[in-house]
Amino acid sequence: MTKRVGVLLSGCGVYDGSEIHEAVLTLLAIDRAGARAICLAPDMVQMHVIDHLTGKESGERRNVLVESARIARGEVLDAATVKASELDALILPGGFGAAKNLSDFAVKGSDAHIQSDVGRLLQEMAAAGKPIGAICISPVVVARALSSRQPEVTIGNDAATAEAIVRMGAMHRSCSVETIHVDRRNRLVSTPAYMLGPGIKDVAVGIEKLVNQVLAMCA
Amino acid sequence: MTKRVGVLLSGCGVYDGSEIHEAVLTLLAIDRAGARAICLAPDMVQMHVIDHLTGKESGERRNVLVESARIARGEVLDAATVKASELDALILPGGFGAAKNLSDFAVKGSDAHIQSDVGRLLQEMAAAGKPIGAICISPVVVARALSSRQPEVTIGNDAATAEAIVRMGAMHRSCSVETIHVDRRNRLVSTPAYMLGPGIKDVAVGIEKLVNQVLAMCA
Repeated sequence: MTKRVGVLLSGCGVYDGSEIHEAVLTLLAIDRAGARAICLAPDMVQMHVIDHLTGKESGERRNVLVESARIARGEVLDAATVKASELDALILPGGFGAAKNLSDFAVKGSDAHIQSDVGRLLQEMAAAGKPIGAICISPVVVARALSSRQPEVTIGNDAATAEAIVRMGAMHRSCSVETIHVDRRNRLVSTPAYMLGPGIKDVAVGIEKLVNQVLAMCA
Repeated sequence: MTKRVGVLLSGCGVYDGSEIHEAVLTLLAIDRAGARAICLAPDMVQMHVIDHLTGKESGERRNVLVESARIARGEVLDAATVKASELDALILPGGFGAAKNLSDFAVKGSDAHIQSDVGRLLQEMAAAGKPIGAICISPVVVARALSSRQPEVTIGNDAATAEAIVRMGAMHRSCSVETIHVDRRNRLVSTPAYMLGPGIKDVAVGIEKLVNQVLAMCA
């Protein structure tokens, strides 16, 4: 049976959505491992639309599911329609979309609210003992959604973000860009990716390890 | 000296801009080979904005350079400012943006007009004997811009597109997704990528070969 790996997207672009390189590298590693990627994203308006050339808000209005479809080449499901029973694992690429759309961590920090479909799906995955992978900044979403389980996650070396993770009841673990941290108790794998950089080839090493570890933990 | 490889983007998304997977796989192969990617795109309004969930025009207005910055994580140059003398090689990922923004091939077929900055840069690269790589549908741009040189290019197996290439004065070469065609006379490398598919791991094989061949042909 081909393993089905949910890839939870948050838009299309590092400053207001999914980090594109991280999302594509995740899809590449899943395909290379012989598993099947199922892209999904919440159907909601983005918190911001950022002009990626200037770094400033553009004043436009875009939808997370519609923009995520760019990365998924049209094949993306509304997260509200996806149940954990349909997936063997779930992976969250990074990008500010994780902190702006999947949650409001970018604004609220450790008091962040998790988008309802995202929170429900993470809870279902954890309750079913199915593995979760979280890349770059997206471990904050998992830390908040599953705080009662005291998850161990990476975030690179950003002190303020690491502190926020601890305030949410989770544990921060240091990790280089080419490595992963495995929280075996919670079947949770994370890697810092572009929280550390420096380049796409470095980020690719950690993401490939994360995908392979997540697949190894599938039942 | 680190080789500088221009990556000519055409927006962000397969149906109205650069094919995202192809662009990211190009950046990955360049970084892994120890070269430096220089992203560039024309500063112009996109021909279309397509809702990638429905495949229909959204009625929005977006700029090619600004949207390309999403793939480039903000680091993208206006193609009008880039000279061939600043590059060792130039690679064009695919996506409908090549046929809608870098040229109007999607509308005009073999009578296509090439965007002026793109045409000027391709002519400069060819005149300087510097290698060019073209992925997926983007060989039609090179075929039209350099038709007087009778370039040999791939397009997969789409009969209508292959015919248009011949009408433009170029030569079509059959090629599988995991291979490349090398036109040594014109220092031009092409691969079909998502013109054939089927998946990201297959596309990645051809693109990595293309990047490595282009780098091998740098002076």
